[in-house]
Amino acid sequence: MAADGFRPLNEKLLVEYIKATPSLSFKLGVGEESADFVIKEVGDGNLNFVYIVIGSSGSIVVKQALPYVRCIGESFPMTKERAYFEALTLKEHGRLCPGHVPEVYHFDRPMSLIAMRYLEPPHIILRKGFIAGVEYPLLAEHISDYMAKTLFYTSLLFRGTTEHKQSVAEFCGNLGLCRLNEQFVFSDPFKVSHFNRWTSPYLDDDAKSVREDDALKLEVAGLKTMFIERAQALIHGDLHTGSVMVTSNSTQVIDPEFSFMGPMGYDIGAFIGNLFLAYFSQDGHADQENDRESYKTWILKTAENTWNLFNVKFTKLWHENKDGSGEAYLPEVYNNSELLLQTQKKYMKDLFHDSLGFGATKMIRRIVGLAHVEDFESIKDDKRRAYCEHRALEFAKMLLKERHQFHTIDEVVSAALEVPGKTFW
Amino acid sequence: MAADGFRPLNEKLLVEYIKATPSLSFKLGVGEESADFVIKEVGDGNLNFVYIVIGSSGSIVVKQALPYVRCIGESFPMTKERAYFEALTLKEHGRLCPGHVPEVYHFDRPMSLIAMRYLEPPHIILRKGFIAGVEYPLLAEHISDYMAKTLFYTSLLFRGTTEHKQSVAEFCGNLGLCRLNEQFVFSDPFKVSHFNRWTSPYLDDDAKSVREDDALKLEVAGLKTMFIERAQALIHGDLHTGSVMVTSNSTQVIDPEFSFMGPMGYDIGAFIGNLFLAYFSQDGHADQENDRESYKTWILKTAENTWNLFNVKFTKLWHENKDGSGEAYLPEVYNNSELLLQTQKKYMKDLFHDSLGFGATKMIRRIVGLAHVEDFESIKDDKRRAYCEHRALEFAKMLLKERHQFHTIDEVVSAALEVPGKTFW
Ligand SMILES: Nc1ncnc2c1ncn2[C@@H]1O[C@H](COP(=O)(O)OP(=O)(O)O)[C@@H](O)[C@H]1O
Ligand SMILES: Nc1ncnc2c1ncn2[C@@H]1O[C@H](COP(=O)(O)OP(=O)(O)O)[C@@H](O)[C@H]1O
Ligand SMILES: [Mg+2]
Ligand SMILES: [Mg+2]
Ligand SMILES: [Mg+2]
Ligand SMILES: [Mg+2]
Ligand SMILES: [Mg+2]
Repeated sequence: MAADGFRPLNEKLLVEYIKATPSLSFKLGVGEESADFVIKEVGDGNLNFVYIVIGSSGSIVVKQALPYVRCIGESFPMTKERAYFEALTLKEHGRLCPGHVPEVYHFDRPMSLIAMRYLEPPHIILRKGFIAGVEYPLLAEHISDYMAKTLFYTSLLFRGTTEHKQSVAEFCGNLGLCRLNEQFVFSDPFKVSHFNRWTSPYLDDDAKSVREDDALKLEVAGLKTMFIERAQALIHGDLHTGSVMVTSNSTQVIDPEFSFMGPMGYDIGAFIGNLFLAYFSQDGHADQENDRESYKTWILKTAENTWNLFNVKFTKLWHENKDGSGEAYLPEVYNNSELLLQTQKKYMKDLFHDSLGFGATKMIRRIVGLAHVEDFESIKDDKRRAYCEHRALEFAKMLLKERHQFHTIDEVVSAALEVPGKTFW
Repeated sequence: MAADGFRPLNEKLLVEYIKATPSLSFKLGVGEESADFVIKEVGDGNLNFVYIVIGSSGSIVVKQALPYVRCIGESFPMTKERAYFEALTLKEHGRLCPGHVPEVYHFDRPMSLIAMRYLEPPHIILRKGFIAGVEYPLLAEHISDYMAKTLFYTSLLFRGTTEHKQSVAEFCGNLGLCRLNEQFVFSDPFKVSHFNRWTSPYLDDDAKSVREDDALKLEVAGLKTMFIERAQALIHGDLHTGSVMVTSNSTQVIDPEFSFMGPMGYDIGAFIGNLFLAYFSQDGHADQENDRESYKTWILKTAENTWNLFNVKFTKLWHENKDGSGEAYLPEVYNNSELLLQTQKKYMKDLFHDSLGFGATKMIRRIVGLAHVEDFESIKDDKRRAYCEHRALEFAKMLLKERHQFHTIDEVVSAALEVPGKTFW
């Protein structure tokens, strides 16, 4: 064990850890002597180690952060304090939206270790559901609920500035993870970087076009600055479809280790942008049994519903709390319903455009940057994958540059339908 | 002395304090025994106590924060930790722009006490110079220098995000002072508040018009949110003409106790807005000897020069440091001069509009809010004062609502010339 109390675990050491931690052994139903529980490492994410532990009377998931980025290796150090911020946000978002966040059972800061509810089968990662072509009728309803509650209640629309600044100061500590996003989302894809990769040689021109598109880079400038400067709410910070686990009637958001006080549009955009990635990847998964056409329609409908339901729910929370403790818009100033309506419309319009901008940026980085998504990666044929990725990229570039022209999410969806194809075969 | 080491001083106790503080007695040229120095309390500001101390071989100014707001009284508690943030910013801004910030000799945190350079006569508060009708030919040159350097070097255009987030976290501690601005600049003037006052009965309708102008309040909403959420640079936070001391060839910025990581436009707007207040007050100071017409022209020219010089200097610093450590716009991304130019133009355009918005808001609060300015207060005749204040208010309201229509500061100045008068006699 290091002087700071940290010890990287493996299956064997985790057994010892659990035995020495009464609250966990109790949960699993094991005594000090017996070892009647099974452990499996399942981390398929980019950064950390995740163990499923199943005992005789219960189960847990144990997640540990190591002091480097797993998918790159020990050559890329990364503070393990990220586990502290993940635990903090899991608890805060869980308090605000218990239906869609797994419960935290135990947090050990020196060990950078979180024990939480095991999201048991048939829960799977949403992205895998999209690849398999599974519809989740409640997804938009649930995720809009999660976003509306977590973002509203941690913003100045609900909080006073004292609580706000305390959160801002605290989450400044999660700098290392913020810097990862700054680099891999907002910078590397737009310049030559040995971290970048793409489906070569087919997308060589596409990658180059991103690096040489001045209008695009002008827009990214504003978004990157907003990402760093603007403390609007406690955002998840990594809300792609790989951070959501689902069944037909459950939607659970995991992995908020990138969380900080940032712009709301970054979360909303991450989710909707990843829906569009799923949409554009479908042509790569279509086969003779399933042309995926109706599934594509469902995905787009889900994107539409996600924004529209979010808009309704967020605004409803605002109305319900307009005379509350929020210090942005005092009721004595915003004292008539027409003015409040105008204020809300302006706020939601700006948030819509922020979301489109961040969403498009996150789409781009998944195609020409470091970390790609399984939606495309699982398309074995390079040319077919290139076809899908090219369309997604064209759409994202257009959206980033033209986002202020869009007034409703329906218009965005219509634009997605009209992206021309380019065949590489 | 309180348990925290704090003791409110008066002239007599300050003598003891100085004798017990070698660095200060040395500076003043006094031994432990002698008391050959004179002390005078000169605090004319709103919050603190300021003593001028003149010894046989030197002089200092000693400023102490008490745990309440001086101009309201002990009924309005305010953390004396503000002195800590004032000292921090005096030192940081002083390092970045030593020519326009008084040197800090000594800081005592438990005592909330700062000893700094005495800005000796003929230094006077700029606002008093404006009332007397004195021209300062170097003012725009100097203040634009101060703003360009302090804002540029503490922004992401020069700093990396690590240093940026450290500052953000640290200055979240200056919450109490930020909250004062939130209330007295962005909220109270736009609602019924017993803190508000104005030249009654003449401006009763004007005050009411501010409280009932929905379009105005819609704009204020965005600015207030930006003030709280956006950590763009280490701003002074109270850069009105009462925080600047001048002679014909010296310009010194004092009193940054409201400083925090906030939007740059708040400082630029504060200064330019106060120039406009000075301008509109001149009709109240005109007499048979001096119609103040040429002086008014000089003030407006100074407003123009201030923004234009700031724009040039800030952009120059950006160019000089474009390959430096700033992490907002990486040189590998913003890699051609046309793109860099576009990015800068967009940045400066937004900053211009932010400055106009904040400047106008600060003008409004000085006419219908709690703290008024001597420019108007010193106009003894109520009707004449109301005439001046009414025009300033009309201009500010227009500017706040229409600011995005203005492309250059010259256009703003032209608009100031055209504000119609309303006579109350
Ligand atoms: N609470 C949980 N219940 C079930 N599986 C989980 C849970 N948390 C994580 N997992 C599994 O572990 C994987 C990685 O977890 P994640 O928190 O995303 O780690 P990383 O930060 O490395 O991306 C997830 O994709 C999921 O398959
Ligand atoms: N360094 C200085 N040299 C000379 N006079 C000063 C100095 N600092 C403050 N003063 C005088 O004291 C007054 C109040 O100081 P200030 O720092 O503005 O206090 P407050 O925070 O209470 O507004 C100023 O208006 C000025 O007249
Ligand atoms: Mg993950
Ligand atoms: Mg993760
Ligand atoms: Mg002052
Ligand atoms: Mg002050
Ligand atoms: Mg007055």
